[in-house]
Amino acid sequence: MAHSVAILGASGYTGAELVRLIATHGDMQIAALSADRKAGQAMGDVFPHLRHLDLPVLQKIDDISFDGVDLVFCALPHATSQAVIKALPSHLKVVDLSADFRLRDEADYVKWYGGQHDAQDLQKTAVYGLTEFYRDEIAAARLVAGTGCNAATGQYALRPLVSEGVIDLDHIIMDLKCGVSGAGRSLKENLLHAELSEGYHAYAVGGTHRHLGEFDQEFSMIAGRPVQVQFTPHLMPTNRGILATVYVHGDPAQVHDVLTQAYAAEPFIDVLAFGQHPSTRHVRGSNFCHIGVVGDRIEGRAIVIAALDNLTKGSSGQALQNANLMLGLPETQGLMLAPVFP
Amino acid sequence: MAHSVAILGASGYTGAELVRLIATHGDMQIAALSADRKAGQAMGDVFPHLRHLDLPVLQKIDDISFDGVDLVFCALPHATSQAVIKALPSHLKVVDLSADFRLRDEADYVKWYGGQHDAQDLQKTAVYGLTEFYRDEIAAARLVAGTGCNAATGQYALRPLVSEGVIDLDHIIMDLKCGVSGAGRSLKENLLHAELSEGYHAYAVGGTHRHLGEFDQEFSMIAGRPVQVQFTPHLMPTNRGILATVYVHGDPAQVHDVLTQAYAAEPFIDVLAFGQHPSTRHVRGSNFCHIGVVGDRIEGRAIVIAALDNLTKGSSGQALQNANLMLGLPETQGLMLAPVFP
Amino acid sequence: MAHSVAILGASGYTGAELVRLIATHGDMQIAALSADRKAGQAMGDVFPHLRHLDLPVLQKIDDISFDGVDLVFCALPHATSQAVIKALPSHLKVVDLSADFRLRDEADYVKWYGGQHDAQDLQKTAVYGLTEFYRDEIAAARLVAGTGCNAATGQYALRPLVSEGVIDLDHIIMDLKCGVSGAGRSLKENLLHAELSEGYHAYAVGGTHRHLGEFDQEFSMIAGRPVQVQFTPHLMPTNRGILATVYVHGDPAQVHDVLTQAYAAEPFIDVLAFGQHPSTRHVRGSNFCHIGVVGDRIEGRAIVIAALDNLTKGSSGQALQNANLMLGLPETQGLMLAPVFP
Amino acid sequence: MAHSVAILGASGYTGAELVRLIATHGDMQIAALSADRKAGQAMGDVFPHLRHLDLPVLQKIDDISFDGVDLVFCALPHATSQAVIKALPSHLKVVDLSADFRLRDEADYVKWYGGQHDAQDLQKTAVYGLTEFYRDEIAAARLVAGTGCNAATGQYALRPLVSEGVIDLDHIIMDLKCGVSGAGRSLKENLLHAELSEGYHAYAVGGTHRHLGEFDQEFSMIAGRPVQVQFTPHLMPTNRGILATVYVHGDPAQVHDVLTQAYAAEPFIDVLAFGQHPSTRHVRGSNFCHIGVVGDRIEGRAIVIAALDNLTKGSSGQALQNANLMLGLPETQGLMLAPVFP
Repeated sequence: MAHSVAILGASGYTGAELVRLIATHGDMQIAALSADRKAGQAMGDVFPHLRHLDLPVLQKIDDISFDGVDLVFCALPHATSQAVIKALPSHLKVVDLSADFRLRDEADYVKWYGGQHDAQDLQKTAVYGLTEFYRDEIAAARLVAGTGCNAATGQYALRPLVSEGVIDLDHIIMDLKCGVSGAGRSLKENLLHAELSEGYHAYAVGGTHRHLGEFDQEFSMIAGRPVQVQFTPHLMPTNRGILATVYVHGDPAQVHDVLTQAYAAEPFIDVLAFGQHPSTRHVRGSNFCHIGVVGDRIEGRAIVIAALDNLTKGSSGQALQNANLMLGLPETQGLMLAPVFP
Repeated sequence: MAHSVAILGASGYTGAELVRLIATHGDMQIAALSADRKAGQAMGDVFPHLRHLDLPVLQKIDDISFDGVDLVFCALPHATSQAVIKALPSHLKVVDLSADFRLRDEADYVKWYGGQHDAQDLQKTAVYGLTEFYRDEIAAARLVAGTGCNAATGQYALRPLVSEGVIDLDHIIMDLKCGVSGAGRSLKENLLHAELSEGYHAYAVGGTHRHLGEFDQEFSMIAGRPVQVQFTPHLMPTNRGILATVYVHGDPAQVHDVLTQAYAAEPFIDVLAFGQHPSTRHVRGSNFCHIGVVGDRIEGRAIVIAALDNLTKGSSGQALQNANLMLGLPETQGLMLAPVFP
Repeated sequence: MAHSVAILGASGYTGAELVRLIATHGDMQIAALSADRKAGQAMGDVFPHLRHLDLPVLQKIDDISFDGVDLVFCALPHATSQAVIKALPSHLKVVDLSADFRLRDEADYVKWYGGQHDAQDLQKTAVYGLTEFYRDEIAAARLVAGTGCNAATGQYALRPLVSEGVIDLDHIIMDLKCGVSGAGRSLKENLLHAELSEGYHAYAVGGTHRHLGEFDQEFSMIAGRPVQVQFTPHLMPTNRGILATVYVHGDPAQVHDVLTQAYAAEPFIDVLAFGQHPSTRHVRGSNFCHIGVVGDRIEGRAIVIAALDNLTKGSSGQALQNANLMLGLPETQGLMLAPVFP
Repeated sequence: MAHSVAILGASGYTGAELVRLIATHGDMQIAALSADRKAGQAMGDVFPHLRHLDLPVLQKIDDISFDGVDLVFCALPHATSQAVIKALPSHLKVVDLSADFRLRDEADYVKWYGGQHDAQDLQKTAVYGLTEFYRDEIAAARLVAGTGCNAATGQYALRPLVSEGVIDLDHIIMDLKCGVSGAGRSLKENLLHAELSEGYHAYAVGGTHRHLGEFDQEFSMIAGRPVQVQFTPHLMPTNRGILATVYVHGDPAQVHDVLTQAYAAEPFIDVLAFGQHPSTRHVRGSNFCHIGVVGDRIEGRAIVIAALDNLTKGSSGQALQNANLMLGLPETQGLMLAPVFP
């Protein structure tokens, strides 16, 4: 029998992406969809690309009955998430796609997000949702915190290198390029087509992007010492895709070997042959992450490039992968859709 | 047991799209892929978005063994197709995606494509592949001729109106907008990013586009008299998508009723509520076709707008839908993928 | 000595485009820029592409001194314009870029824009700003009403045909494609990059677009009888450009002749050789309008295609051209910038 | 009287961009245009955006009479350039836009471009065309070698820092993003719209891009010791624009000060306030270069970001700026066009 799930915050892009993926999953049934401001509307009116599906009408969260629901995907904005999740019935498993439960340390949360966390007890129990590195904990968790999409990309490129000690931890530079859907469906001048298309620029330059909280937490934990990377994201005139170009000090062949071995058994993480490197075009709409390693002309320096789709592997695909684990389903179920190219 | 299929011309966009769709089909096994100039290469090298799949190496057609193969998708260029298909073993069912077998009349073929047809016997037996209107013939056919992508879009908007006699057959104007992937992966100056992006223009203006051969053949047959539509395609700075804006003389409500009833049971053709109209964004990457009808301020005139993805419903999705019928599989198998938005 | 001008509503795209053009005009000096909500900001902060220019700080309109100013460009929203212009000192010449003074008839204004006009006396004296057809009146006018960008494109394609009586006035269909900058810098969900890019759709289908008020007014006046065209605009995933594909009943060669002769002496309107047709790419960023005529395969039907840049010839370039006339300057001054391609 | 110029290789993008700029220059007359394969065609047929200009018909180079011509812009491909320039009459001043004369050292040329240089005598006398740093030599030169577009961008970000000794020369990483027009109008699969749009990837990863020859030559010369930067370009789905994100070790405030002072008097190089950084959108179609400096959260590290238009300041605009100097004209003549946004 299909597992019953609810999606809170279904009127945003990650909510819609969850519906898209679950549409061909086979063992999940969407029992409820929430969207406070659009309550009462049909999902197919809010997202006409989903109109062929038989979906529940959008509701206010307070009007949803969670009886019989097994798992909730929470695709609400930061801060709202913690309040909502705190109030959910305890029988529900929860996959949160917001930033609210990514940082385990209260002080870190305050530092990067400002203000006190509203659900500190939950914060302590939440499992960080980077599937490949927290698989067992996720399978056993009640609450999983989806990672930042940039944070996921960068960690795929770097985690095995940090844990194996093959790169200089004080010289890591991550120049990241991401599509606009990561910013959500919010009405901001800089997200308008006329402002965003046909050009590119950096943002959050100098180490102010909140996903650095995740990098700091995870890399420092793995390394057993404080690690700070340099991280500069750039906004691209595309809707989907993250490309992280990571500059490290280390032996390129060894870097490639470590990544190849680390991901050898992973269904979604694909390390290319040495010298090859990926394009965001070739993972679009899919749950795959392609990683390449190239040696620089300067000895002892390597460039690691990782590509994934921010809405899929970077967010909703990851969430579904984690939900599969939490519900005892095959991890890849519903996620083997091939990328859409061109 | 899975049906065994081969794809000839797998290095083009329609070939790759077939592989993408078959990847999650479940009951088809790709036994062979051909690409004469790229023979010997891995499909994942030619199309890195398909590298996660376990696929046969590209071969020359002459090197393929068709023993055990049930059906061949032929995604070769016009003219090449007829020669290749003529030479295929007779046990093979064939879905041709080229223009070679779309026109039943020899003279029509000569008029629109120039030169004599090389396989006139086959030409006479080929079934026109517009699934919703030739379903039974397709299920029984050995050779099905995939329609032009523009021809499919225009026919979805118009066929029921022509057959029900609710529009003036002498005043049909179809202004069509299509993405660039319909032109294939060929190296032409006007298909370069620098030439094509950030602007738009008409092409084949004045009634010279070859898909008019299909419109003339089908509409005249249905109407029982010669019917000529005006048809002007425009090239858009997008990769996928066709939007046909069709101007007809007829009662808008009646036009809407006829279309709604005609497609009521169709799994992929979705007629919107009266006054609503579609966007190519909401069918991208899927096999769905959205159709809208709006009444003009001038009485007795209606605008019918149809949207589909040229590579899916307009080409490879249609081909798979037909192949399902020919192999006795459920018609929608492998084709219920939701559109990818944004 | 340079003429002194002010631009009201300088924080929108048409305001910025005026500044861009005036930057190399040579005989205009920008004395004041207004933007109520952004008053106090530097223009180079609101539009960094203009930061190399020495421009006045943005002000509230009420704070501007119009002493010594010769002409005001009013790039304010509809309805606001009429109130502001009514209150301007009478020594000022005014070029309005809004819709407020385009319709001469009070009832027409009410019909298309709703509500009473606030400055009916001015409405009666305003000259319609389609330069090539109102040149003498514009040169003598105090207030010129800039045309709608779509309205300009369609009229360039059709006016000479209507006035020469070479087409059937009851069968005119205009299928228009336009870039997003025409919608301005407003925060609307459908103008977001993630919503707008990679697809296209029609809008204001069925004869509801306000620019029809201009078509009706002008074509009916020229023809001496009521003329209603069918007009369906489509939103394209580009920032600039309008392409109007106009379907008419008439002799194609005669249609081409009439247009060629009508525009033979025009510096900005360029009729291509018979059978050629334009692309928006080739007029982008410029004040040129390219027009092509092709005969359809159906005898007695012609397709007229016109392309211009909505922000330049369709709006701010037109405004500057009119201002040149009003100030006694050469009409083309500051407007001979070549299009930017690619 | 206007100076007479010829453009060799006028059917490429840099050739067309030269024509666009010269169109409003005022003191240059285009006497001849060459395009061997398109000889006999009108420039307006090859580039319809230039059809309003009165231009010479395209000729073969051998058919051009250089009598009366003052200066030649040579926009031919690498290797062809050296042969052609060697054969030009000696009275001609020459601005070469190819890579042929950028490297002064014969061995460097062989290393980066392969094969012997065909005009080594000229190679020794050519002046490197980075205007702001070779102004006097350019004014006195017969032959000026236009820089690589990426090489120009990177040098604007770094030269003053290298010469003032305020950064660690062994830790310079330049992550560069560029539009597709830099690759020219050549027919390559990866330049097709369907291949290039909606995604991004790195290329020439690991220190293999030929523009590194320029960086090595110039930075080593300035520093008085060998300097090797890490340089990874990325291809963006836009037509114009280069954004170089440069990671350096040095005091951010000092880095900003040095750049601000170095460019204080430059008409085209604009250093933003500390902490601000540029977008390619705001220089598009213009000869301006915007530079920003931000301090990283890691002490002693700064990020310098430079943006320019590859076809203008990175190529044809630079060429015209140099030609102005060589002809004794004001350096900025014809180059003050404001960027085109949106």
